[in-house]
Amino acid sequence: MAGEFDIIAKYFMPLAGPEGLGLADDAACLTPSAGKSLIVTKDMIVGGVHFLEDDPADSIAYKALAVNLSDLAAKGANPRYYFLGLSLPKGVDEIWLASFAAGLKRAQDESGITLAGGDTTSSPSHVTVSITAVGDVPTGQMLRRNGARAGDIVYVSGTLGDGALGLKCLLGETSVSDELVTRYRYPAARMALGAKLRGLATASADVSDGLLADLGHICAASHLGADIEEAKLPLSDAAKAALKTSPDLAPLIYSGGDDYEIVFTADEAKADEISSAAKEAGVAVTAIGRISDTPGIRLVDQSGALVHTARHGYQHFET
Amino acid sequence: MAGEFDIIAKYFMPLAGPEGLGLADDAACLTPSAGKSLIVTKDMIVGGVHFLEDDPADSIAYKALAVNLSDLAAKGANPRYYFLGLSLPKGVDEIWLASFAAGLKRAQDESGITLAGGDTTSSPSHVTVSITAVGDVPTGQMLRRNGARAGDIVYVSGTLGDGALGLKCLLGETSVSDELVTRYRYPAARMALGAKLRGLATASADVSDGLLADLGHICAASHLGADIEEAKLPLSDAAKAALKTSPDLAPLIYSGGDDYEIVFTADEAKADEISSAAKEAGVAVTAIGRISDTPGIRLVDQSGALVHTARHGYQHFET
Repeated sequence: MAGEFDIIAKYFMPLAGPEGLGLADDAACLTPSAGKSLIVTKDMIVGGVHFLEDDPADSIAYKALAVNLSDLAAKGANPRYYFLGLSLPKGVDEIWLASFAAGLKRAQDESGITLAGGDTTSSPSHVTVSITAVGDVPTGQMLRRNGARAGDIVYVSGTLGDGALGLKCLLGETSVSDELVTRYRYPAARMALGAKLRGLATASADVSDGLLADLGHICAASHLGADIEEAKLPLSDAAKAALKTSPDLAPLIYSGGDDYEIVFTADEAKADEISSAAKEAGVAVTAIGRISDTPGIRLVDQSGALVHTARHGYQHFET
Repeated sequence: MAGEFDIIAKYFMPLAGPEGLGLADDAACLTPSAGKSLIVTKDMIVGGVHFLEDDPADSIAYKALAVNLSDLAAKGANPRYYFLGLSLPKGVDEIWLASFAAGLKRAQDESGITLAGGDTTSSPSHVTVSITAVGDVPTGQMLRRNGARAGDIVYVSGTLGDGALGLKCLLGETSVSDELVTRYRYPAARMALGAKLRGLATASADVSDGLLADLGHICAASHLGADIEEAKLPLSDAAKAALKTSPDLAPLIYSGGDDYEIVFTADEAKADEISSAAKEAGVAVTAIGRISDTPGIRLVDQSGALVHTARHGYQHFET
């Protein structure tokens, strides 16, 4: 394969914005506009852990960027720049690299983010993609996890469980649905919605570890709890069909992870504004419950019976 | 081992600065002072590629941060925040983690940088450490690679070849020197010097891939060449002793890499100011040659004979 500098020149320089200085210096130079703060997030995805080794390279790249964009969206940030760390085993060829770059390009084109720098190294075994993404918000307007108030409505964007069910399709644990596989491989970050939630949402997080886990982060940071109604959780038709075939997979809806939706809270009085924001952003937003003074998260069914009480979602290393 | 959130709470939260929001949100929030630009660099180090699997965990952490600090130093930036991506195989235990955190702490204490965020994941095999470091400079004062002018003096900080020779000690390819091993494992970034070179150096880069390779980046970006005198290259006593035992390792001085010194260029008229800056920063700076209109880098011995002509240093993937 070509050398590191040739790879950068051929595949990554075309993705760079002006702040990347042509990827021809040791570092990037970011000068935020007056009155703006930079929101910075870093999510790493690892072959054999976060994606399957035979996933298409463009989907690995797309997802690596999307999971970071999703964090920016949940913080109300406009996407600006990203930094790419890429560790590649020997088997990777130029076809793989071209596909990988195409996946980045697709996510860039959809979000407006551009490449500003990074590092490409070899790896003794699997692919690792480490992205640091930078967005901006007017100073003081970052959406935090810790602003929820008792009585706030809990909302979630889009539909839940599609990504986790898509993975089960790929693992042969349920019947294959192209739609679910696509949601797993190419999760669309809710950028347009996130920016519109500034000043509306009291707290916000992205749903990457599962609804209950990520809502749990909001509750923990806000020192509150939540009551969620299972019947209100938004499901895609594809997810409904999959659960008809494999009803045992139902918990994936609230604990599967890989959703890359936004879970947020807002004062009841803001319902109309949130509805308008969702319409403008072109994504559904569903009220699924309410923030409570009582710690913990209670998921209840239509009869009011407790389905699940949650503390944590997926944790690496947990025994 | 403990879960991901417990690891973050126990080992990484104590390292976080205020911009990291207690590592309790999805992202960090950076608000640069008026008139400042942020300099951002990202260097990834991979087990079995950049460090030896049995290197002490504190040295892996120290080095991962130092290689990024070194880039900031070479750009004239004051270190501010860093983001840590850490991918860990199953074998890693709490003793390893405690040592790793101590290595980060040491590099933080020496530089003043603080942790602002990151991501901790599992790995199917080796350790990967991906750091994104952020510094700041007064807007417009970043030291670039592309500002060298014909006739400028070429300087290098500290001593060359120690890191590369230290690795050879560990690999049993030369006699062991604790000093060289320490330079390999705990390279000290030249932060104090870098900041003082703003407004003095015309171009600057850090020496990570080897002197000739990194000076090559300056020459390529500036569309110029350089003439370097081998006899002037600064060597530590430990390096001199190692080369006496193993004279065949002499090329490591200018092409070994892992130096984490600064190579920079400056107008001849600035020699006294550079000398003062070096004294204040507490690090030696040596004039080793001159920038030339003739492309390419020529390393010559005392008789004027060509020792080496350089284009590139270490490249990952090169066949």
